[in-house]
Amino acid sequence: MDSFTHGGNIYYYSKLLGCNANEIIDLSSNISPFVDENIFEFIKNQISSLKNLPSSNAIILKEALANKYDKEMENFVVGAGTSEIIKNLCLINSGKKALIIAPTYIDYERYCKLYNLQINFHFASEKRNFAINLQELDFSKFDIVFICNPNNPTGYYIEKDDILRIAKRFENCMFVIDESYHPFMSNSDNKSLLFEKSKNIIVLRSFSKIYGLAGLRIGYAFSFNKEIIREIEKHCLEWGVNSLSEVVGKYLLSIKTDKIASKINEIKNYLYEELKDCNNIKLFSSATNFVLIKLYHLNSEEVFTKLLSNKILIRDCKNIRGLDDSFIRVAIKDLDSMRYFLSILKKIVGCEN
Amino acid sequence: MDSFTHGGNIYYYSKLLGCNANEIIDLSSNISPFVDENIFEFIKNQISSLKNLPSSNAIILKEALANKYDKEMENFVVGAGTSEIIKNLCLINSGKKALIIAPTYIDYERYCKLYNLQINFHFASEKRNFAINLQELDFSKFDIVFICNPNNPTGYYIEKDDILRIAKRFENCMFVIDESYHPFMSNSDNKSLLFEKSKNIIVLRSFSKIYGLAGLRIGYAFSFNKEIIREIEKHCLEWGVNSLSEVVGKYLLSIKTDKIASKINEIKNYLYEELKDCNNIKLFSSATNFVLIKLYHLNSEEVFTKLLSNKILIRDCKNIRGLDDSFIRVAIKDLDSMRYFLSILKKIVGCEN
Repeated sequence: MDSFTHGGNIYYYSKLLGCNANEIIDLSSNISPFVDENIFEFIKNQISSLKNLPSSNAIILKEALANKYDKEMENFVVGAGTSEIIKNLCLINSGKKALIIAPTYIDYERYCKLYNLQINFHFASEKRNFAINLQELDFSKFDIVFICNPNNPTGYYIEKDDILRIAKRFENCMFVIDESYHPFMSNSDNKSLLFEKSKNIIVLRSFSKIYGLAGLRIGYAFSFNKEIIREIEKHCLEWGVNSLSEVVGKYLLSIKTDKIASKINEIKNYLYEELKDCNNIKLFSSATNFVLIKLYHLNSEEVFTKLLSNKILIRDCKNIRGLDDSFIRVAIKDLDSMRYFLSILKKIVGCEN
Repeated sequence: MDSFTHGGNIYYYSKLLGCNANEIIDLSSNISPFVDENIFEFIKNQISSLKNLPSSNAIILKEALANKYDKEMENFVVGAGTSEIIKNLCLINSGKKALIIAPTYIDYERYCKLYNLQINFHFASEKRNFAINLQELDFSKFDIVFICNPNNPTGYYIEKDDILRIAKRFENCMFVIDESYHPFMSNSDNKSLLFEKSKNIIVLRSFSKIYGLAGLRIGYAFSFNKEIIREIEKHCLEWGVNSLSEVVGKYLLSIKTDKIASKINEIKNYLYEELKDCNNIKLFSSATNFVLIKLYHLNSEEVFTKLLSNKILIRDCKNIRGLDDSFIRVAIKDLDSMRYFLSILKKIVGCEN
């Protein structure tokens, strides 16, 4: 496990276990388990789109986004996942000073390193349950700040107005707000920074998480600042999004996601309820579809390995800067999977009734 | 039409014509029209793979390539089309001296410019029917050389041994040999530089052209030099290839492509035969699935526009450096499409019997 290993590597672990990838209950990647079955019918009818090249710079998706949100196409850039956008943001800021609010998603650091940004971290503290008070921080020394909101892996959500306040105060700094997990919150639309008229905010959004189709590889960014959007797009592949993904993505934009979010929240609450009396672990509160768990008497590798031998894959957090081998992260999946997970976890950590 | 506009933009032109994209006969992108219908059945059964993230760095495809060709995985890098590989090759050679054998595919220049390489061109001459004699050239001043072989858009093929000879002579120069159109040649395997044990050759291969599924976005590079492969991969997205594309790509590797190639060659020969007596145009001989055509009395825009009004899209070559508005490029498609194209083209250029 190197320092930039992600979750979701079921291909590797299925080989290790000698089983099929689909036999593994993957709680390591934060992807919704609830996929509308209509989508698969739709996809079947769109397969022939693979005969053609995708549209240039995913213009089909940019148009669909602009129409849906009544904005201009030039405010959007579409990438092969938010990864392509994060990567190119770092590339165009090569040599500059970056601040990463940590512990967080490892790709900000990965790409800052690759393109030689000067990296600084502000660590949320476990003592404060990983809460972040942005108003305490001085951003004047930084060119670009990465904030995952709600944050992966802590689940902490920073209020929209708090971010707007610092963006106004530090207008020479570009704030990259990664809202990949935003749609899992209740009343999420009102809590989002999408479409704010701020020249120094870029909002990232992912199609991978809420729609349950991480394999599509679609992410996008919105900024009121068209120049920065154009700069990012210059470095994006003209045909980075597969032509089938493109038409599926357009279709997904017509789907309401509130029901998916509330179903996942119910199951998350059940998880909290089931583990609340277990003193050997601590669950941090989470605004989204995964939960960070502190282990008191075992290390993450032991728990990871024991769960894996039961074909359950979780995210061992020991390679996440600002955490250590006493943390694991668990994504919320369907109720049956969570029940099975709970039964095994309770045995491992010693919390059986 | 800016200087880096590609062919294949049926989405744009269908809007212009007010028709569906699939009503347009697309002779502007060099993609085989022959797709095995079994592939679509296979894809239908693999749709659920979209629920999961792709494998890291497309390891599924790298393994399949290594197995098929009995090589090591570490000699391959897989990208979202050869574009991702060309882009990253330029990125890691930023500031260095590049030579582009022209006229050719515009992405070499596009990415050399984007990443500030010092660009030089060697132009094949129309007088010599765009033939290239590499032995006449001095590569000692260059760090990286781009050779598309067979070349797009001229169709000229440079013998494998000619390239090996210069690679040996100029060992400080990296030769990037783009073999995207190689599989369309007869006995193509024997003519390829794939798997040559040369430290300064990188061979690019595309899944888009021969298999007729350009929308998949898969390309790969092979080099005996593992260090350069590792350097390129560092800048590739970990999940650049869609998870459905990945399984489809693996399946495609099991398909023999000789029959596709010979079907296309037959139709190409029919095109040459039908136009051989037409003195208002000249067809250059082509080793692959497209033909460069010189217009003597009309300019490319006139011919382009008239064909388009008949829902035929061709490649106007006026934005290709080293050509001008007397050239068009036409891809070989199924016989019916080519018959229809011939009937319209003959009227336009005045070659009716």
